[in-house]
Amino acid sequence: MRYYGYSEFLKDINTLSSQIKSFNPDAILAVARGGVTIGHFLAESLNLRSFYTINSIHYDNEKKLDYIKLFNIPNLHEYKKVLIVDDIVDSGDTLFEIVKIMNINYPAIDFKTTAIFQKKSAKHTANFWAQEADDWIEFFWTKDLK
Amino acid sequence: MRYYGYSEFLKDINTLSSQIKSFNPDAILAVARGGVTIGHFLAESLNLRSFYTINSIHYDNEKKLDYIKLFNIPNLHEYKKVLIVDDIVDSGDTLFEIVKIMNINYPAIDFKTTAIFQKKSAKHTANFWAQEADDWIEFFWTKDLK
Repeated sequence: MRYYGYSEFLKDINTLSSQIKSFNPDAILAVARGGVTIGHFLAESLNLRSFYTINSIHYDNEKKLDYIKLFNIPNLHEYKKVLIVDDIVDSGDTLFEIVKIMNINYPAIDFKTTAIFQKKSAKHTANFWAQEADDWIEFFWTKDLK
Repeated sequence: MRYYGYSEFLKDINTLSSQIKSFNPDAILAVARGGVTIGHFLAESLNLRSFYTINSIHYDNEKKLDYIKLFNIPNLHEYKKVLIVDDIVDSGDTLFEIVKIMNINYPAIDFKTTAIFQKKSAKHTANFWAQEADDWIEFFWTKDLK
């Protein structure tokens, strides 16, 4: 278990934001719930008012379910470049599936992905990531409330 | 201008969470972007996986536009009690409008509202709020990145 705190998060948001500036997205799509606070901070940092969420169910605590369910796909027709945001690319199943489905729904949009943590063994590598993950991460939005 | 920091936020989330437990919502609807981080933390605190966002445009920096536009209303048909989350009830126009529209769209759902800050002069009073606002608030998700 590794605790990931707010001050470390602020540094990583600045790191990611610098990387992402070259992509210059016109909207953010955060994966609920894990990607939501990151997405909010990135939206502030990139000065983007266009903030959306998508819902995905894939984890049951630390135990994986057998499927990934995506729902509440927002209307993104007015955008050209959308940044998909999650907390961690663990197996990579979620972002792999979301990118696939979003490309089918919006073939004209350039989707790129970002996460704070990237696991080397994942089947999807985020376009922008801040740290390599080699342990279970306890994020401050979970841990600081306990 | 008043700075509102992360440690004060954590206390307020705990305060709000205790109040909200009596309502026992089965989903959270956060107003993007301002209500997003609060909604995420409340969802964690209340152990609610059902987290959604709604988009509203109403402010242009500190200057008000003449209208409130709501979009990307999520599918909430499976829920009975939904908590609408925003950062501050300033004029109250946004939450007033959102509650009105959501009641029209989902007459069977019991909607309640929450915000960290409540202004006395607002036309809508949140069902659950933590502090009275009498100044312009600089939230940490904006200020800590500058």
